[in-house]
Amino acid sequence: MIKIVAKNFVKKENIDEVIKLSKELVDETIKEEGCISYEMYQDVNDNSILTMIETWENRDVLAKHSKSEHFQRIVPMMSTHMEKPAEMNIYTKIL
Amino acid sequence: MIKIVAKNFVKKENIDEVIKLSKELVDETIKEEGCISYEMYQDVNDNSILTMIETWENRDVLAKHSKSEHFQRIVPMMSTHMEKPAEMNIYTKIL
Repeated sequence: MIKIVAKNFVKKENIDEVIKLSKELVDETIKEEGCISYEMYQDVNDNSILTMIETWENRDVLAKHSKSEHFQRIVPMMSTHMEKPAEMNIYTKIL
Repeated sequence: MIKIVAKNFVKKENIDEVIKLSKELVDETIKEEGCISYEMYQDVNDNSILTMIETWENRDVLAKHSKSEHFQRIVPMMSTHMEKPAEMNIYTKIL
C-alpha cells in the first residue's frame, strides 16, 4: 500500500479554479483500478494550501495513474495556478 | 472530521528510537475517543522523514489528545531526536 501526500501552494486568486479542476481529477481517479482513496484537503490555517492525500494498492497502479488521460490533461492546467512547486512525499505505512 | 499530517525530520541515527517511541504513542492514541486513525508513514525516498497521518472526529477530541498523558510524555522525548521542527498541517476534507 502506497500513500501520497501532495501539498499544493495555490495562488490566492486561483483557489476556486484549482478546486474545480481537482473535482474532475478526483472523480476520474477514484474509478481507477488500485485507487484506494484520493481526497483533497484544505489547510484550516491557510486556505491556499490544498493537499491531495492518496492511497494506492502499489507502485504499478500509481504509475498507471500518472499516465492516465485525466492526469496528463488536468495536472498541467492546475500547475499554472500555483505559487510554487508542490511538495510531494511517497510513503509506506510503518505503524 | 479533521486530518493532521505531521511530517517529522529525524536525525539519521535516531530513526529506530523514534519509531519505537511512536509505536507506544500510536498504541495509546488509537484507544482515544474520537480517534478515527493514527498511522505513521516513512518516506520511500528518505527514511528520515517519518510522518504521522491522523484522522479525528473534531477539534475537541484532538485538543484532548494533545493533553493526554501519553502525548505529553512521549512527544517531548521524540522531539529530542529531530533534525528540525516538524511540519504540521491541520486539514478539513473538501473533495
